[in-house]
Amino acid sequence: MSARPLKPEQLLTPVPSDITISDAITPLPITQIADAAGILPSEVIPYGATKAKISLSVRDRLKDTPNGNYVVVTGITPTPLGEGKSTTTIGIVQALGAHLNKKAFACIRQPSQGPTFGVKGGAAGGGYAQVVPMDEFNLHLTGDIHAITAANNLLAAAIDTRMFHESSQKDKDGSRKFSPVMLTRLKNLGITKITPDDLTDEEISKFARLDIDPDTITWQRVLDVCDRFLRQVVVGVAPTEKGKTRTTGFDITVASEIMAILALTTSLKDMRERLGRIVIGLDRKGEPVTADDLGVGGALAVLMKDAIQPTLMQTVEGTPVFVHAGPFANIAHGNSSIIADEIALKLAGEDGYVITEAGFGADIGMEKFFNIKCRTSGLTPQCVVLVSTIRALKMHGGGPNVVAGQPLDPVYVDENLELLERGCANMQHHIHNALKFGVAVVVAVNVFATDSEREIELVKAKALEAGATAAVESNHWALGGKGAVDLGRAVIESCGKMRAQGSPFKFLYPLEVGIAEKFEIIAKQIYGADGVEFSEEAKKKLEIYTARGYSNLPVCCAKTHLSLSTDPTAKGVPTGFSVTVRDIRASVGAGFVYLLCGDMMTVPGLPTRPGFYDVDLDVETGKVIGLF
Amino acid sequence: MSARPLKPEQLLTPVPSDITISDAITPLPITQIADAAGILPSEVIPYGATKAKISLSVRDRLKDTPNGNYVVVTGITPTPLGEGKSTTTIGIVQALGAHLNKKAFACIRQPSQGPTFGVKGGAAGGGYAQVVPMDEFNLHLTGDIHAITAANNLLAAAIDTRMFHESSQKDKDGSRKFSPVMLTRLKNLGITKITPDDLTDEEISKFARLDIDPDTITWQRVLDVCDRFLRQVVVGVAPTEKGKTRTTGFDITVASEIMAILALTTSLKDMRERLGRIVIGLDRKGEPVTADDLGVGGALAVLMKDAIQPTLMQTVEGTPVFVHAGPFANIAHGNSSIIADEIALKLAGEDGYVITEAGFGADIGMEKFFNIKCRTSGLTPQCVVLVSTIRALKMHGGGPNVVAGQPLDPVYVDENLELLERGCANMQHHIHNALKFGVAVVVAVNVFATDSEREIELVKAKALEAGATAAVESNHWALGGKGAVDLGRAVIESCGKMRAQGSPFKFLYPLEVGIAEKFEIIAKQIYGADGVEFSEEAKKKLEIYTARGYSNLPVCCAKTHLSLSTDPTAKGVPTGFSVTVRDIRASVGAGFVYLLCGDMMTVPGLPTRPGFYDVDLDVETGKVIGLF
Repeated sequence: MSARPLKPEQLLTPVPSDITISDAITPLPITQIADAAGILPSEVIPYGATKAKISLSVRDRLKDTPNGNYVVVTGITPTPLGEGKSTTTIGIVQALGAHLNKKAFACIRQPSQGPTFGVKGGAAGGGYAQVVPMDEFNLHLTGDIHAITAANNLLAAAIDTRMFHESSQKDKDGSRKFSPVMLTRLKNLGITKITPDDLTDEEISKFARLDIDPDTITWQRVLDVCDRFLRQVVVGVAPTEKGKTRTTGFDITVASEIMAILALTTSLKDMRERLGRIVIGLDRKGEPVTADDLGVGGALAVLMKDAIQPTLMQTVEGTPVFVHAGPFANIAHGNSSIIADEIALKLAGEDGYVITEAGFGADIGMEKFFNIKCRTSGLTPQCVVLVSTIRALKMHGGGPNVVAGQPLDPVYVDENLELLERGCANMQHHIHNALKFGVAVVVAVNVFATDSEREIELVKAKALEAGATAAVESNHWALGGKGAVDLGRAVIESCGKMRAQGSPFKFLYPLEVGIAEKFEIIAKQIYGADGVEFSEEAKKKLEIYTARGYSNLPVCCAKTHLSLSTDPTAKGVPTGFSVTVRDIRASVGAGFVYLLCGDMMTVPGLPTRPGFYDVDLDVETGKVIGLF
Repeated sequence: MSARPLKPEQLLTPVPSDITISDAITPLPITQIADAAGILPSEVIPYGATKAKISLSVRDRLKDTPNGNYVVVTGITPTPLGEGKSTTTIGIVQALGAHLNKKAFACIRQPSQGPTFGVKGGAAGGGYAQVVPMDEFNLHLTGDIHAITAANNLLAAAIDTRMFHESSQKDKDGSRKFSPVMLTRLKNLGITKITPDDLTDEEISKFARLDIDPDTITWQRVLDVCDRFLRQVVVGVAPTEKGKTRTTGFDITVASEIMAILALTTSLKDMRERLGRIVIGLDRKGEPVTADDLGVGGALAVLMKDAIQPTLMQTVEGTPVFVHAGPFANIAHGNSSIIADEIALKLAGEDGYVITEAGFGADIGMEKFFNIKCRTSGLTPQCVVLVSTIRALKMHGGGPNVVAGQPLDPVYVDENLELLERGCANMQHHIHNALKFGVAVVVAVNVFATDSEREIELVKAKALEAGATAAVESNHWALGGKGAVDLGRAVIESCGKMRAQGSPFKFLYPLEVGIAEKFEIIAKQIYGADGVEFSEEAKKKLEIYTARGYSNLPVCCAKTHLSLSTDPTAKGVPTGFSVTVRDIRASVGAGFVYLLCGDMMTVPGLPTRPGFYDVDLDVETGKVIGLF
């Protein structure tokens, strides 16, 4: 790579805030990044000077090019502060692209604006390993999450309005012509007539009445805001809705099934079909009701037609980054899009590298990366990078609580080999988990200035002891790609080794076993649970969904990221616990069964001192201040 | 203007559907449209090839250029089908720009996706007078409405979460440092200390507790969806919110005060201030609580920083169109943005024309254009174009109901001079109204193929009789700009006449009279009411808002567009009625007092056969089908 926005002499100590670093850098024109990446001008749809959507046609044009090496970055069980997984992803790609002369792409998720204004801050990486401009990245980007909000809520409105109209109107609505989506529904009902006047009364009733059972509706509304008061709401309270109130709830947009569809789809056609077959609930006969039954599948696809194109941005060192889809790993499947990975793998080519990120920690994000995302895409990863920090390992060894916004206890700053050694068990558990999938495991020790040499060596030794292919310290936050060169080399070597071996990659479970069995395999083998339990509600759903033929789908568990168990306070490697499934939803469009484990909230709350307090606009320059 | 996307030989009879016309045309690159309009490349922020945001710096660069002629397009009281107000706006600008060799810009609103997928269809104009690509225009555009949804709902989340935390936590939150927005709040409270440790207990309590009175909260959540079940909701029902339920509601996004702020703001600085002073309700002492009190004003400004730039698109004949802000006229102030008009007036220059549109009908959209928008901007319009159709005038003369999706009664297709003559009273009422503001009035008879020559002549005669400067038939829907050349000439002459006279433009009411008095002036002089009434709730608000010093603000009435009165079934020129104000909200950030008259719903419903039934995606080409 030639031109780099960040000049070596711009590296400052101490490292300034993320927005300060981002503001000090003039990004290259995104058209130049695209050109260097091998993307044709006709395949670039600019959104301003620093972001562009990339056409899916790249993939078709390069269909005969062999894929690049495929690396997933994940992490140990984190503290609430996060352990630098995104930062490491960006650091590796900067090392590979800007220092080791490899064609390399990062593929990351679009951050939700909920946490950006809540507790977490930005998600563009950090320090000298970040995506720029970081404010563009953290705000609306190119509108994909907004498109999901719009589509999700149009479907929700269609459901309630349909029930309302069915309750108050006659079967004939005066339409003179069937729309195509109506004809599809007629065909599904076994009615082959094509004009309304030909239908018998019985056929009219069958066609006009979905007869949705309100108690079975699993489709919720969504907003991309940390608004805890929307977790459960009663709708239809206004007199105009004539007493037809209903208790329902909102999720954060990143937990929408439509977000999962965006992340897992492989083409416009596939996306249209997935959106149409979304199941929103059952009718009173127990049959599933779909988005296409409601006549809204086409409109959803139209709302999502731009969102299917991934967004190209750049790191501070001018390396290309695809940003696409943004499901959280704790309440959704936690991985960026298949389409972005596919495009990047073709652009990278045989000697290139695609570094994709799975949400926190490896027990949820990585597990779903392999069992859901790779299964859907058919792509074969060679290597897992497991991000570890000495801070988090000390916490797992018994260190005091780490709380966002409060000063760190001295044990996290001073050398403490005893605490650290105990805590390494958590890392070793994740290494063992990753090895079950037949991939190489590189442990990245994301170092802080306060880590001692002996501490770093201890973690590396423990990682190798557990079977890691390599264990390397990395200092990309302070030094950019230069700080991750050793890590980049370890990734190159590990990928080469796996390719030379042929791919031993394997899934954790076959699709053919039932929903409960799949969950039991994950809970025991990945979380380390003794057993699993299902609430009465979950048991009922298991029965319904099995009867409906959904038992062959992979499972997606909503579980806290703060522990291997479902108890966020249980650190290290908890034992002697069982995992309870509270509720189950069928994400038929996304193609998985969604299990809610423990007390997971699908809308995070805002803290007492939310991030938005510090955010403002410099009205003279238009620059964002206070984003971190 | 040189290149035009639409070639004369492409004009077809019968006129195809809007999306068919739009698809058949290859728009010019938006950079070329911008260049021809006098916009520098550095002022263009492309969003794909056919849309671009335009930097506010254009206005500063051209600050010494005299403004162009300023024309507002409005309409008589419409049928539910609409009478072609947007289409006429686009038709005039095509006539001026592509046929009469004038520098001309249309300034229109961004359509809400609610009606697009509900009953109304697209809002890009229609036939051969439309904005292209019409699907881009009608869908996400450049994300401004989504940004408003995000900002509005972040503020809503801040309110409920703040009350929740205040109810359960101690005054000290452990913060070690005040953010700038906290310092502003301290200053407002008369506390000059700058570190948390220096505050007395009393000061801490004063600072930490907003003590919002839940019963006074007027801030609602919003979605850009026709979801009637959200009109009134109970939030906080989940056990995690500990029984702190609250009855509130959603509005459609275009009714958000933030939409009004976007439309009325004049700079980044002004927008930041307006957002900060939004009043969400009162504390238990009766003092107003603002967005800045909640610490969220800066974050709102950051979310809106791109939205403040208007979007440039083009007509089928390559004429430039600014699309910016989208408040409905019935439930909001109904006018596109001041900023877009200002930029366009500078680009047009002294001999040029800016054709801006006010929402339906003149009794609401035009009234607010003059009394709110022009008062805020200080811009002086020369001419009103009042769009009339023979169909709507016959309805006002006593013709049967016109219902969307149902066949028109024969009286609307056959010649019927008697019905038409009676109906012309509605048009004459609107002409009289417009003349009160001291502007020229050009009546545009938007003709349909079924209108007879004698019918058209009758309308023109009635218009001139009522004092219109000119009355011209126009056939831009079928013929594009060529069909509106006579109308364009009438606009040019009328503007010239008004400029030669010097500007006699005046407001309907002075700001100094009270809220109730202002409303009475509008109701009597514009709607033709005998008197006004206020509900108990409204009386209470009148008292509070007057005491709070808001009585000097202009008033914005939410009222049906389907009648001059508040009864949508009362056609023609209703008399002997009074208007009841049901509720009042103070839109302090937008700068007006918002009066809800009659049964206005701030979330429209979806019809039994919603528009989305027909919308789908051609998955091979990516083209949208079925948008109308």
